[in-house]
Amino acid sequence: MSLSEFSLIERFFARRAERGPQRAVLGIGDDCALLAPAPGQVLAVSTDMLVEGRHFLPSVDPYCLGHKTLAVNLSDLAAMGAKPRAFTLALAMEAPREAWLEAFAEGLFALADRFDCQLIGGDTTRGPLNLCVTVFGDVPTQAALRRDGAREHDDVWVSGTLGDARAALGVLRGEWPSNLFDERELASLQHALDKPEPRIALGLALRGLAHSALDVSDGLAGDLLHILERSRMNARIDVDAVPRSDAVRKLPLDAQRQCTLAGGDDYELIFTAPPSAREAIADAGARADVAVTRIGTISALRHAANEPAIAWHDASHAQLSLTLQGFDHFDAN
Amino acid sequence: MSLSEFSLIERFFARRAERGPQRAVLGIGDDCALLAPAPGQVLAVSTDMLVEGRHFLPSVDPYCLGHKTLAVNLSDLAAMGAKPRAFTLALAMEAPREAWLEAFAEGLFALADRFDCQLIGGDTTRGPLNLCVTVFGDVPTQAALRRDGAREHDDVWVSGTLGDARAALGVLRGEWPSNLFDERELASLQHALDKPEPRIALGLALRGLAHSALDVSDGLAGDLLHILERSRMNARIDVDAVPRSDAVRKLPLDAQRQCTLAGGDDYELIFTAPPSAREAIADAGARADVAVTRIGTISALRHAANEPAIAWHDASHAQLSLTLQGFDHFDAN
Repeated sequence: MSLSEFSLIERFFARRAERGPQRAVLGIGDDCALLAPAPGQVLAVSTDMLVEGRHFLPSVDPYCLGHKTLAVNLSDLAAMGAKPRAFTLALAMEAPREAWLEAFAEGLFALADRFDCQLIGGDTTRGPLNLCVTVFGDVPTQAALRRDGAREHDDVWVSGTLGDARAALGVLRGEWPSNLFDERELASLQHALDKPEPRIALGLALRGLAHSALDVSDGLAGDLLHILERSRMNARIDVDAVPRSDAVRKLPLDAQRQCTLAGGDDYELIFTAPPSAREAIADAGARADVAVTRIGTISALRHAANEPAIAWHDASHAQLSLTLQGFDHFDAN
Repeated sequence: MSLSEFSLIERFFARRAERGPQRAVLGIGDDCALLAPAPGQVLAVSTDMLVEGRHFLPSVDPYCLGHKTLAVNLSDLAAMGAKPRAFTLALAMEAPREAWLEAFAEGLFALADRFDCQLIGGDTTRGPLNLCVTVFGDVPTQAALRRDGAREHDDVWVSGTLGDARAALGVLRGEWPSNLFDERELASLQHALDKPEPRIALGLALRGLAHSALDVSDGLAGDLLHILERSRMNARIDVDAVPRSDAVRKLPLDAQRQCTLAGGDDYELIFTAPPSAREAIADAGARADVAVTRIGTISALRHAANEPAIAWHDASHAQLSLTLQGFDHFDAN
């Protein structure tokens, strides 16, 4: 493999980037791109690395992978209430595969263009398949949806449905019979795994409403704990209120709970907001065209020294003791 | 490998980051970091991915690798005339190795702290060893040292010496007998390969002086061409004027030329400036404590449609026809 073949890949992405939105002072082709936030705002910055075998299967459709590589990063912007602006892409692959790269770029730029997000730089090199995106968005400092803002009596909300991506993985792994689902359901589960939709519009609509927010990548149980730890709060969650698709409802109740509470790869938003904002939150969901569901409440720590925790209960208010396994992506070991 | 072990790595880097400079509105621990350029300036952004076997040998000292991972990114800021500000780190490794990570972090943060550069976020995951840094610096838009600003009659300058890193690689590969060099020379060549010094102070001193600049990562011949292509200019270079260390001077003349013109991994700056700025450039080099050497001149394309090219000559002004092999990093294939 010669360096020049990798230069060709860079030029390929650069050409595609030139056809997209131009939102940087200086884009691809210099030592650095030059970027400034919108006047009066700051840049929200996030990095995610996707590795074959861990975040996606070798058999993944490259178009979907292009979509997902950017989507998981945009989801971090959504969780911050930031408006997408630009991104960099570093890509390692063993050998340039033209058709694969073409399809990957199609998926990547289709999503980038939808959110007016410009590729401003990157790097390509030979190595085991690895995709690293750093994404930039605009947000007014005071409006940023942080993890440390949850307050006592806040409602806990979640967008969309949880557990679909994990259910799709279970089908691929043969954890449950695929004939449990009809074709439409199988397709919708697979779609959730392959093409998660970053909740950008909802994140923007929650500015000034939500006290805290994050996106669900490792599963509700683990991710909600990040809000609780940074906000020094407890939460009480109704596991039966956690929204799930009709397909996920076909699973045994135990599996439903595993998928919705500890499934991961959901890229929905969890957020907290005061009860006085319920109507406004419902409106925000409607404007963003995504369901928003109340699943619990935030409460104070009993003692300041206590570790924040989640108390789970079911629809009958019976307390549950759950043993949840964190999302292990595609890890077979 | 459980997720929690990788969370531990993240916490390890986050703890280190907290002890360093705090230059972001919001750092590690949320969905995004929040960052704004200094008032009146823009952010310079660059991404580099380092892969085992390609950019470093598996046997590399992890302290040096930590240094180099950040250094090659800071070098891009230097080439832009930007002041380091912050960086993100995404890291894939097959299994967390505590002593290795400790040493890697030591090297990384030692350099970061020297340049007041804050780790503001990142990602850790299991996978073949891969290090991806995105770096941020401040620069006034008009002062940025771009690649497209070279003008007719500009001098071509280079900082430091070229070829040392490539000479060190030649020793490791047995391309030339290591007893050609004394111990001090071997150490200094290895140092050039392992611990390149980003020319930040020089980049800052060249604001308002240099018309164009970039850093040498793939070799003078290939990298200078990037300036020429973007500036639509030719260059005439005296290959005997290209600065080289006493150690490199011990190689046969052909090997000296390969190392200095097409060696790569140098991370010195190439820049162009008008002859009227010669004294000021010498001053800038002195203030930045690095040698700066004139190696040639920029000339206009004969016809606007021509491809930019470099004309090589030696000290006697005899024209040379060089066959240069681009830097192939550690690629054994």
